[in-house]
Amino acid sequence: MEQNHRWNDTRFLEFFRQMSSIGATKNGGLERQAGSPEDIAARRVLHDLLADEGFAIQYDQIGNQYAVLQPVEDAPYVLVGSHMDSQPLAGRYDGAYGVLAGVFAVLRLQEMLRAGEAQPKLNFGVVNWFNEEGSRFQPSMMGSSVFTDRLDLSTALASHDQSGTTVRDAIERGDWETSTPPPQPAAYVEFHVEQGPVLKDTDVPIGIVESSWPTSKYAVRVVGKQAHTGTTDTMDRHDALLGAARLVVALREIADEFTSSDGTVITSCGELTVKPNSPVVIAREVTTVLDLRSDNQDLLDAATQRLDQQFTSIEREANVQVETKLLHSWGPRQFSDAGMALAEKVSAELGVTSLRVRTRAGHDATNMTEQVPTVLCFVPSQDGLSHNELEFTSDEDLTTGLQVLTELLCRIAIDGELVTA
Amino acid sequence: MEQNHRWNDTRFLEFFRQMSSIGATKNGGLERQAGSPEDIAARRVLHDLLADEGFAIQYDQIGNQYAVLQPVEDAPYVLVGSHMDSQPLAGRYDGAYGVLAGVFAVLRLQEMLRAGEAQPKLNFGVVNWFNEEGSRFQPSMMGSSVFTDRLDLSTALASHDQSGTTVRDAIERGDWETSTPPPQPAAYVEFHVEQGPVLKDTDVPIGIVESSWPTSKYAVRVVGKQAHTGTTDTMDRHDALLGAARLVVALREIADEFTSSDGTVITSCGELTVKPNSPVVIAREVTTVLDLRSDNQDLLDAATQRLDQQFTSIEREANVQVETKLLHSWGPRQFSDAGMALAEKVSAELGVTSLRVRTRAGHDATNMTEQVPTVLCFVPSQDGLSHNELEFTSDEDLTTGLQVLTELLCRIAIDGELVTA
Repeated sequence: MEQNHRWNDTRFLEFFRQMSSIGATKNGGLERQAGSPEDIAARRVLHDLLADEGFAIQYDQIGNQYAVLQPVEDAPYVLVGSHMDSQPLAGRYDGAYGVLAGVFAVLRLQEMLRAGEAQPKLNFGVVNWFNEEGSRFQPSMMGSSVFTDRLDLSTALASHDQSGTTVRDAIERGDWETSTPPPQPAAYVEFHVEQGPVLKDTDVPIGIVESSWPTSKYAVRVVGKQAHTGTTDTMDRHDALLGAARLVVALREIADEFTSSDGTVITSCGELTVKPNSPVVIAREVTTVLDLRSDNQDLLDAATQRLDQQFTSIEREANVQVETKLLHSWGPRQFSDAGMALAEKVSAELGVTSLRVRTRAGHDATNMTEQVPTVLCFVPSQDGLSHNELEFTSDEDLTTGLQVLTELLCRIAIDGELVTA
Repeated sequence: MEQNHRWNDTRFLEFFRQMSSIGATKNGGLERQAGSPEDIAARRVLHDLLADEGFAIQYDQIGNQYAVLQPVEDAPYVLVGSHMDSQPLAGRYDGAYGVLAGVFAVLRLQEMLRAGEAQPKLNFGVVNWFNEEGSRFQPSMMGSSVFTDRLDLSTALASHDQSGTTVRDAIERGDWETSTPPPQPAAYVEFHVEQGPVLKDTDVPIGIVESSWPTSKYAVRVVGKQAHTGTTDTMDRHDALLGAARLVVALREIADEFTSSDGTVITSCGELTVKPNSPVVIAREVTTVLDLRSDNQDLLDAATQRLDQQFTSIEREANVQVETKLLHSWGPRQFSDAGMALAEKVSAELGVTSLRVRTRAGHDATNMTEQVPTVLCFVPSQDGLSHNELEFTSDEDLTTGLQVLTELLCRIAIDGELVTA
């Protein structure tokens, strides 16, 4: 479909490609971890583009970036957005799609208003949440967690990466002037790539998220005693890496044990750091992060209890100490019924099929849905691949999503659906 | 015992403390990995000290450092030494003791010659082998392996650390002018801390090493597929970290399984690196180094065969590929009978008790013993602790060892025992 307005699909795809070059990896992926030079550069481009178009650019103390228009005095806001930060060696779509589609949706809406086609009931804008990914700084979903008072600002600012750089340092390097207070939304909309295979398998372009899986993440420190690998008897060892390895194996066994006809448990460990990490030295310490997720809160609770038992038996068997800290957890979050119905109606009116789905991954929307009516929609991911340089969503799926998002934003901001102003 | 010569024990202990300050850690240990600024600084101090005393300083292409005296034209050399490089967060004694005691032994011998007390039959010197530890660059015992033609020079120079710096780069930074050929020894003597508890437990100050344990080290790469931890089904995962964890656990089980009345098997994994190492990403790749050691070659062979089987079953169970490469191996190396007898005689004449022991750890002496008559002696390590910042040998044990080493060197270089010139 050729469009003749300024913010047409061709220009969106061009914009998406341009933004994907900031932090591009040689295998066609992206690495733009929170607060990195690439993340800072991407924010600068968004800042300049939206400021030029007359949006007010704001930052809050945890580094969330907002670009807002206030055509209606004293009305609440609807925000659309997601996050521009990425995992290491990741794909181009995760998070970035939601922000960039949000940018075009608000620009299209602004153009409609300028053309005198409509009078809005709500103010509107786009948000780029800080550090959704949680790869460099933990926990994940940091910006939206602070925004929704689920995480203390000072705790978040003190979080540091492996080199000791704190979130506070990283935000200072961003040189983003904070404005108080940030815009207070009355509704939130996020579009995201699915990161799973359901939409692709069913050939449906829009997934409307009903709820998220309960999830628990633990920071674990296994403490052993540094010694020579060659000269230390097996019985005298306090081998932190052996303890951590037993934990990783046990964690997978828990997923297999608790998955049943009552529900699914998935467990993961993707980060593990060994100290001092030499082939000839028994590790003194291993730090790692474990997570457990389930579509059934009871199963998750039972699996977590089993993990606690494993901590104790691994301490005994590997002759180490295991210290654990709950890093981040969320229960089964539900999304707004009215929001889901509206997304369904808008899609249908545009001739776009949609499907209700659940999300296993956390999103900024899973924080926001606790606060305000929130709509989270997915577009398809080829092979369900995510957090991988080969992550892919077709141009057609990207622009279909943008079309639905724009219309959804119009209905909320102009027609006042979802939020009673 | 107060000594009035220039290179007395008090001065040795002072020298040892001074050298331990180069790369000192805050917990009283040492970090001076091969080719690091600290390693380069330590070599510079040795260079200057021994050059000032009239020794010829030489380096070979793999960065071994030699300081030699040639009082006898055309006679062969006896070399004493060890290595100044350390593991990360390691102790002060491992390697450094052998070099620094060697420095004082050759200086004492030089003083005797200057006083006209003796005429030597051999030339002599001290050697500081490059990269014995193998923590930053693999394999370990690199300098002595190249020197004894067990490792190809170009392979060694191309070995690189985790940041991509090669041995060639590190040696260039050292700015050590190579001289060809390096001194060719006819005998080699190494004193080292025991790194095990036998001498301390039996209250014997000198261990005379009979043989070393056969050892095999493998570099292993586990290849999975990067994916999102939250959204990827258990059955769809190719989890490189799970595969590596199973390997670490299986390796320990092999030690337990094969240790019997026929002998002991010890197995270790101390280094493991995860890529991309984010809590929310299933690892695409893990690299690690495994080792197996035994006092019984047949047991070691059987254990290695079991490990091969484990590689295959782990590939299947964790849905990953496992690539392995034999990194370094040595059979049961015997030390010179005449050398052991001489060390025993010298100790007894000095009133120092000694004990024959075996070594599980590799040493530069385990390379040298294949080439020339080699004596390897140990001094006690408190609690057998090694590769640990708290590694400790008492001043008394250090100076007793130096006394035995000096006398041993005299017997070899002056009296011509061990080597027929």
